[in-house]
Amino acid sequence: MNPAQLDHLLATYRDGLLGDTLPFWTKHCVDREQGGFMMSLDRAGNVIDTDKGVWQQCRFTWLLGELYNHVEPRQEWLELAKHGANFIDTHCFDPADSRMWFHLTRDGTPIRKRRYAFSESFAAIAYGELAKATGESHYAEKAQRTFERFIDHNLNPQGVEPKFTHTRPTRSIGFPMIAIATAQELRESIGLASANEWIDRGIDDIRRYHLKPQIECVMETVGIHGEPLDHFDGRLLNPGHAIEAAWFLMREGQWRGDQELIHTGCRMLDWMWHRGWDETHGGILYFVDVDGHSVQEYWHDMKFWWPQNETIIATLMAYTLTGNPRYLQWHQQIHDWAYSHFPDPQHGEWFGYLHRDGSVSSQLKGGLWKGPFHLPRMQLVCWKRLAQWKIESSQSANAERGHDPQSLL
Amino acid sequence: MNPAQLDHLLATYRDGLLGDTLPFWTKHCVDREQGGFMMSLDRAGNVIDTDKGVWQQCRFTWLLGELYNHVEPRQEWLELAKHGANFIDTHCFDPADSRMWFHLTRDGTPIRKRRYAFSESFAAIAYGELAKATGESHYAEKAQRTFERFIDHNLNPQGVEPKFTHTRPTRSIGFPMIAIATAQELRESIGLASANEWIDRGIDDIRRYHLKPQIECVMETVGIHGEPLDHFDGRLLNPGHAIEAAWFLMREGQWRGDQELIHTGCRMLDWMWHRGWDETHGGILYFVDVDGHSVQEYWHDMKFWWPQNETIIATLMAYTLTGNPRYLQWHQQIHDWAYSHFPDPQHGEWFGYLHRDGSVSSQLKGGLWKGPFHLPRMQLVCWKRLAQWKIESSQSANAERGHDPQSLL
Repeated sequence: MNPAQLDHLLATYRDGLLGDTLPFWTKHCVDREQGGFMMSLDRAGNVIDTDKGVWQQCRFTWLLGELYNHVEPRQEWLELAKHGANFIDTHCFDPADSRMWFHLTRDGTPIRKRRYAFSESFAAIAYGELAKATGESHYAEKAQRTFERFIDHNLNPQGVEPKFTHTRPTRSIGFPMIAIATAQELRESIGLASANEWIDRGIDDIRRYHLKPQIECVMETVGIHGEPLDHFDGRLLNPGHAIEAAWFLMREGQWRGDQELIHTGCRMLDWMWHRGWDETHGGILYFVDVDGHSVQEYWHDMKFWWPQNETIIATLMAYTLTGNPRYLQWHQQIHDWAYSHFPDPQHGEWFGYLHRDGSVSSQLKGGLWKGPFHLPRMQLVCWKRLAQWKIESSQSANAERGHDPQSLL
Repeated sequence: MNPAQLDHLLATYRDGLLGDTLPFWTKHCVDREQGGFMMSLDRAGNVIDTDKGVWQQCRFTWLLGELYNHVEPRQEWLELAKHGANFIDTHCFDPADSRMWFHLTRDGTPIRKRRYAFSESFAAIAYGELAKATGESHYAEKAQRTFERFIDHNLNPQGVEPKFTHTRPTRSIGFPMIAIATAQELRESIGLASANEWIDRGIDDIRRYHLKPQIECVMETVGIHGEPLDHFDGRLLNPGHAIEAAWFLMREGQWRGDQELIHTGCRMLDWMWHRGWDETHGGILYFVDVDGHSVQEYWHDMKFWWPQNETIIATLMAYTLTGNPRYLQWHQQIHDWAYSHFPDPQHGEWFGYLHRDGSVSSQLKGGLWKGPFHLPRMQLVCWKRLAQWKIESSQSANAERGHDPQSLL
């Protein structure tokens, strides 16, 4: 990557975020009448369902606070983040058990709570950014409390009917990886005291239970002791999810200056790139079976937006942290495939759901599952990573007198 | 349809059932060691997951009993039906609450129970056929008891945590239509005394709440009073499901000699053919939105085997019951599309999951959701309908002296 390529790529992410993704959402999703955000938008940004998903309320609030804290202190972003937090405060918690809802009506009346507590993890990072942006301690307290509830409920779920019997207990990579990412955010935003402990624990769980060097694979679901389960669910790999976990580990390695951790993240990327990259049509597949059997989930071979987003981040991080040209090649491959298939040339933002061959399956821009999160996070993380790397590279070039700076980039 | 075409079509269904579909399953799925059936088969019939889904245990047991009672009394079929019923008796009920499980390990240890009671409806029809085949009263008692549990649990679910709050109560067409089909089967197999009452009630519910003549549509999910719900779930149409309900009504109309009921079934087919037939690629789409908005379910535009099966039945029934040539044309259209895309030329049986364009997405022959049910039921119902219609037509031709018999066919 020469300097011109770097600048072009950096601008693609930055301008895509600030000039396309963010305006799409701020223009269309803000509910000035009843609070919060209406995320179920069609291609053109029209609201096609007024219901409100709690994940997306929290994630957009986080994004707005993150932008305010890390891009520039625009009052519009802070005002919208507070607008989101007000709705979360007022409507997203069930007073009966203090757990968070998953799905609400437009006016905040609850429709569904799930067995899991991921709403809490997303609320925690949203409150964390608002604490940092405003300095108001109640946000920091809420961030800490919702994080603890996320942890507690996952480790010891109370008051929910389990989906499965105790016959075949499993562990999923979802909890340790989201614990890591949430603790990383809260360490940065509110200086969460227990952050490193939860990150260590998450990394340890992933290494101990989910990484399988013998078969070069990150397992999504394993037995309680990490044993493989030769059933549909146990064999099911989610490459985009594992690659997301990979960059959480790389980010931690970078933060700690821990090369071994960066290496672990890169290895996870290596394994799951080979499992998930579609050699026929390009892009990262949604699910694959570890043994090559058929998968039971119907959408297994579709191309969703978010696994591509996570792979764009992971390959860029791997390249800029290791200099290994393989990662540059992969980054170009996934970037080019994603940018040639997902962006909506007419109304902006990205389509979310493509067929395996890259044709559009659904024109939905948002719903309970898609909102202003994976795409803008990718754009922000990649922009900032490239900007930082540009500085690192030029410092490094200056230090190595007489060395061709281009070869370092 | 001339007599040669009729004979050819009849043979396609009959020989497909007896020479292809049934042998595929009896050869590959019977678990002689631990009982019941292992339905998770790959393309070639290899077991790729030893777990046992309760729906498929019951459905195959029903099919075997149905064949024994209505095709010929082959001992192999009766022996296999008893083999299935033994496993159901021994492993598929939870003694703690008498409800049925949904998913078991190979040895019958429970993994999952669902909130719903459709396992019970499929067990009821399986026991019913065994009662008829053997004359043993315990089967009839079990058929009646599981039917009652199916009804009771659906009308008044006890001991399950509801998925949704009471904010937006809904009713789904699933319960009334399965109640109708189950009661029809049990009326025939055990002479269920309450059958007509439940069928009447199911028909009344569908007419009252789910049929919307103003917009010519069968709604899958409506508000508790039948009101439309302008949200993703409320707008979601399942054309294959509605068309399945349509032929349950036509079958009832035929049984009762009720032309109005046949007409209602045909109208449901008319409406949902127009909603579900894919003008671009052919075949019946899985989900469509009543207002043409994007659907949130990822597999909305895939072609599953069973909506095609249901549409083949419904169009043939509509044609043979009304003589309207539109239904003959639709039957040829759906039959030809399905038979040119779903059958596996190498290993027999049908693929279950195609992309919108008809290419194979998953080579799975069976799993928790696909098993020996929709396809062989279609083959059996269409074979028997054609055989009966052939007799009716020739009687009718004889009665109308001097009339060209071919024009009646």
